Amino acid sequence: MGAPPPRGKFITLEGGEGVGKSTQIRLLGEALRARGLDVVETREPGGTEGAEAIRALLLGGAADRWNPQAEALLFAAARADHVARVIRPALDRGAWVLCDRFIDSNRAYQAGASGLADDDIMAAHRIGSGGLMPDRTLLLTLPLDVAAERAMQRDAGRADRFGARGRAFHEAVNAAFMAQAAQEPARIRIIDATDGAAIVSARIQTEIEDLLP
Amino acid sequence: MGAPPPRGKFITLEGGEGVGKSTQIRLLGEALRARGLDVVETREPGGTEGAEAIRALLLGGAADRWNPQAEALLFAAARADHVARVIRPALDRGAWVLCDRFIDSNRAYQAGASGLADDDIMAAHRIGSGGLMPDRTLLLTLPLDVAAERAMQRDAGRADRFGARGRAFHEAVNAAFMAQAAQEPARIRIIDATDGAAIVSARIQTEIEDLLP
Ligand SMILES: Nc1ncnc2c1ncn2[C@@H]1O[C@H](COP(=O)(O)OP(=O)(O)OP(=O)(O)O)[C@@H](O)[C@H]1O
Ligand SMILES: Nc1ncnc2c1ncn2[C@@H]1O[C@H](COP(=O)(O)OP(=O)(O)OP(=O)(O)O)[C@@H](O)[C@H]1O
Ligand SMILES: [Mg+2]
Ligand SMILES: [Mg+2]
Repeated sequence: MGAPPPRGKFITLEGGEGVGKSTQIRLLGEALRARGLDVVETREPGGTEGAEAIRALLLGGAADRWNPQAEALLFAAARADHVARVIRPALDRGAWVLCDRFIDSNRAYQAGASGLADDDIMAAHRIGSGGLMPDRTLLLTLPLDVAAERAMQRDAGRADRFGARGRAFHEAVNAAFMAQAAQEPARIRIIDATDGAAIVSARIQTEIEDLLP
Repeated sequence: MGAPPPRGKFITLEGGEGVGKSTQIRLLGEALRARGLDVVETREPGGTEGAEAIRALLLGGAADRWNPQAEALLFAAARADHVARVIRPALDRGAWVLCDRFIDSNRAYQAGASGLADDDIMAAHRIGSGGLMPDRTLLLTLPLDVAAERAMQRDAGRADRFGARGRAFHEAVNAAFMAQAAQEPARIRIIDATDGAAIVSARIQTEIEDLLP
């Protein structure tokens, strides 16, 4: 029996709706696979059967379907399942895990923009997932109008419970993301997402280069 | 405008499967209504549209569908919705709220019997529901075999995710309930539930008499 593989790296992509997270996850996954790495792409809320069922509760229905407290706990429950069944096992076998949204979205949306205490979000994350934090987080930033235009084009006008909220809410989300990045500059890297997808991908690859084997 | 009504009392019934909680909620409701009180009967997990949707996730599927962490957070999320939309508004307007299971079940099943820390259960309850505690809790006790026999007769052999667990699990649940009662004797009253339903109801009414207006 050989030594266990070194633990994989856990990378998250964050930012508001339409900034290009899903696009960039795919491109980063391709780039890392081209280097011979084992890569798992996943998303939050979701990523397991149970968590996708919770995702359906979270994203469907009226904007006021859940109060911020219930919402935060549902996110933490979905994440607990996702971390236990997908993320930790993948990291343990040495895979890189690329996750589309994680705890920072939860903090930006439920604490920053909806008034819950950040400590409560982090406490629920500790209870559910042992407080697992990403090795690196790429925060994609884009002016709200540009992001909204991109998302609108993609979705042909349909919006989920979060997309349906007003401009002030999304501005508060962006401000919360920026405040988090200012507090944790080593982990959270701000990525200008206004340019074409290939250029943005190159920026992201530069910001994770020090983690490569 | 008159003075606001005095806050109603919040009463919970606890105990393992088949001990008679639902039966006793109905009888206590009748007795309190006969005294002219406004009474709301409800249950956990559930009691609101959102919480019933979470209940379906919790009680359906395989016994290992959720790990104890995700399970505890789902219960706390359901309770947050239930407390905000039903329990607090009812208490505020002066109604008595009778709830079939509440935080003590969560503590007995997820902490006592499944190994989560009691502090974590209470932290999730504080995040979701501001830590609302019952004014009085009636813990119905019955030998495991008698309770199982009653539940079996009622359900004709069907069991949900919790009912499907083994004897050791249910013994651990009962032990956890008893430990809680020993820690909080003023709030939690132990009720021998072996006798007929009317006799058990009389015992319960005695144990809440000091709360009556
Ligand atoms: N750099 C880019 N330039 C122009 N358009 C882009 C760029 N990146 C992504 N897009 C397009 O913008 C839209 C939104 O991108 P994407 O779905 O990746 O964003 P997202 O951050 O995942 O959004 P959501 O939060 O809604 O999931 C898509 O139609 C995508 O093709
Ligand atoms: N004192 C009693 N004597 C005999 N049978 C009883 C008594 N109380 C309730 N039962 C019967 O036992 C069964 C279980 O009672 P009940 O449904 O009230 O229990 P429960 O605690 O609510 O169970 P669960 O946790 O499964 O909801 C029912 O069929 C009920 O009619
Ligand atoms: Mg996306
Ligand atoms: Mg019942």
